[in-house]
Amino acid sequence: MKCELISVGTELLVGDTLNTNVHYLSKELSLLGISVCYHTTVGDNPKRLEEVMKIALQRSDLIITTGGLGPTQDDLTKEVISKLFGKNLVQDDKVKEDLLQYFVNREFVMTDNNLKQTLVPENATVLTNPRGTAPGIMIQENGKTVILLPGPPREMIGMFEGSVLKLINKQQDQLVVSRYYNLSDIGESAAEDRLLDLIDVQDNPTIATYAKMGEVLVRITANGKDVKVVNALLDKYEAIMIERFGENIFAFSKDSLCEAVGKLLMEKNVTIATAESCTGGLIASELTKQPGISKVFGFGIVSYSNEAKKKILHVKEDTLDTFGAVSTETAREMCENLQKISDADLNVSVTGIAGPDGGSEEKPVGLVYIGLNYKGNTQVIQCHFKGDRKIIQQKTANKVFHLIRQSIVDKME
Amino acid sequence: MKCELISVGTELLVGDTLNTNVHYLSKELSLLGISVCYHTTVGDNPKRLEEVMKIALQRSDLIITTGGLGPTQDDLTKEVISKLFGKNLVQDDKVKEDLLQYFVNREFVMTDNNLKQTLVPENATVLTNPRGTAPGIMIQENGKTVILLPGPPREMIGMFEGSVLKLINKQQDQLVVSRYYNLSDIGESAAEDRLLDLIDVQDNPTIATYAKMGEVLVRITANGKDVKVVNALLDKYEAIMIERFGENIFAFSKDSLCEAVGKLLMEKNVTIATAESCTGGLIASELTKQPGISKVFGFGIVSYSNEAKKKILHVKEDTLDTFGAVSTETAREMCENLQKISDADLNVSVTGIAGPDGGSEEKPVGLVYIGLNYKGNTQVIQCHFKGDRKIIQQKTANKVFHLIRQSIVDKME
Repeated sequence: MKCELISVGTELLVGDTLNTNVHYLSKELSLLGISVCYHTTVGDNPKRLEEVMKIALQRSDLIITTGGLGPTQDDLTKEVISKLFGKNLVQDDKVKEDLLQYFVNREFVMTDNNLKQTLVPENATVLTNPRGTAPGIMIQENGKTVILLPGPPREMIGMFEGSVLKLINKQQDQLVVSRYYNLSDIGESAAEDRLLDLIDVQDNPTIATYAKMGEVLVRITANGKDVKVVNALLDKYEAIMIERFGENIFAFSKDSLCEAVGKLLMEKNVTIATAESCTGGLIASELTKQPGISKVFGFGIVSYSNEAKKKILHVKEDTLDTFGAVSTETAREMCENLQKISDADLNVSVTGIAGPDGGSEEKPVGLVYIGLNYKGNTQVIQCHFKGDRKIIQQKTANKVFHLIRQSIVDKME
Repeated sequence: MKCELISVGTELLVGDTLNTNVHYLSKELSLLGISVCYHTTVGDNPKRLEEVMKIALQRSDLIITTGGLGPTQDDLTKEVISKLFGKNLVQDDKVKEDLLQYFVNREFVMTDNNLKQTLVPENATVLTNPRGTAPGIMIQENGKTVILLPGPPREMIGMFEGSVLKLINKQQDQLVVSRYYNLSDIGESAAEDRLLDLIDVQDNPTIATYAKMGEVLVRITANGKDVKVVNALLDKYEAIMIERFGENIFAFSKDSLCEAVGKLLMEKNVTIATAESCTGGLIASELTKQPGISKVFGFGIVSYSNEAKKKILHVKEDTLDTFGAVSTETAREMCENLQKISDADLNVSVTGIAGPDGGSEEKPVGLVYIGLNYKGNTQVIQCHFKGDRKIIQQKTANKVFHLIRQSIVDKME
């Protein structure tokens, strides 16, 4: 079943409103196994809406519109579509009763233009609106289903969950299941390269990759009528994913690297502390976006200046003078001294040059030392990151999360 | 000139990605006086993309596509559109050189599939991509203009601002100039309300408001053929903005509140230190995203646990026992003790309940105390923020930046 979503509203075309309706509906319908093949947006313009509807009726089986059902002059979706199907608009007594009650309940005075909403196309199914005044409509003719939903997201979602889900489930018997694999330390094109043989012949399941900074999310989606068959297909591909990506898989879910690391720390009860120079608190900030992290995170220090490195972290003046703030030795003292203050299991330190200034030939912008003290052992890793200041900071944070995960996983094995 | 935006990408049709590109482009184009009449979204499916392009060429003069320009197998926009215009794809040496350099700069190994990006339709204009590898393309034939932009919003916006704006401006023979005013401590609808008389009759200049958390950006765009006339129009509206918003204007630019505060601190040479509990390093992290901030920022402490508040900030056990970690008294000790450690001019402390757990009837989720010690004076402000964990953290950070700015500006007057 091919589906098309038509959004009606000039506010979308002038960029006043972000179209979250198609995002919501696309996700919901995909999970029901319905292929959404097109989104179309058109303004409050009856001629263009009619043309767009005609095209949709040629290429799609299920058409869902949002918007243009309200009481005002420019709400024309119902009128245009009724005309297209050769249907008269007739008053629906139940809708009128609900509408009057709606205004009584809220002690609002009803203006006359509201009565427009009580007109529905003959022989259409009326969908009640639990969160507003405009009812929805479903028309089924010649193998095509057209569903008209209101534009305000709250009303649209209420009607979708309340009526449309049931109507669609009744009509189809397909199961669609997706599994997600999140990878680190590999680029999108390199990841795709390893899956190319499968992507080239993909049918069921389908494979999609999505790149974020330092992460690649792979989605594998299978469909079928039998849950066992669908799961067997997904299991087969899961084995391939593990074989081909192994340690690059940091989450069998959509979790970001930082979220996966946060969960791992909490699950294994590994306490952590941070001492950041060039990332300036980014690592602590990312970690503490996660609920419940206080169980394992208590201490974070942003020792941005040498003064702070000496005063709070007790890095020796001699170390800073001899090797400089950006050095293996400073990173090592930072995380080892942090351990003494925090008493945490895992102590991370970062010192580097995020730029744009402060670089030299010997120590260029992007040079970063990461110290990691875990259960008595300290390692310091030298990295060279490319990019602007924010990218260097973000890449450093991602590398730190990657190293934290590796340390914990290695210790477990 | 009728414009149509075509978004290419299965991730949009399955609801994995929210289509922010059409929102951005619709707003930008509308402000340039271009009527966007249709948005169409189609998957990574060459046959459907071709059909959709044919329809667009019939009904629109300017067609802008986003997505499908990358290195992977499912990136097909350029191929489909070149075929439709009967154009061969030929290698562009400059594009190839840029691409190779891109990988050299980042010390990445380039996989062969990337070379696909160096092919461009004959006689097309190449648009450089300042933020990625896939170049954009412009084709002009038979009175129709087709512009192909990459899908990742960062790259798309970079290319739109860097190349497309100029190309459109050239064609329009018009000068379009925008000025920005960034407001804090006022909501978007309240801001719009104060401008309603101007918005209602807007023609030239046009006024647009954009809401971000705790900030409202107002853009005033004037057009004309003469730079003097355009500037005079903008000056007139600038006077109105100052009259109506006064101290709410924190930047005469797109600068975020944090960026404006960072610049103010550096310009006035006011040193600052932070002690964060519920924001977990967010304030330090936002500040240190700015180049040169080390001039004024040296010390940040993320005292997430009570242990850290005692050990690093020397908050008295008695204070924590009697008043609790989330209290005026703790916030006060945090910032006053921080001053002794940092010796900074301005010392900020934050303690609160970001949730979702940890709230009580007496101290609900969203209760936050902000301490501000500036040149010997300490004030503590109690706030109640609504929203989820991340929103509470972000609103807290924004309030802190607002208070910092106010303190410095007040002292100056």
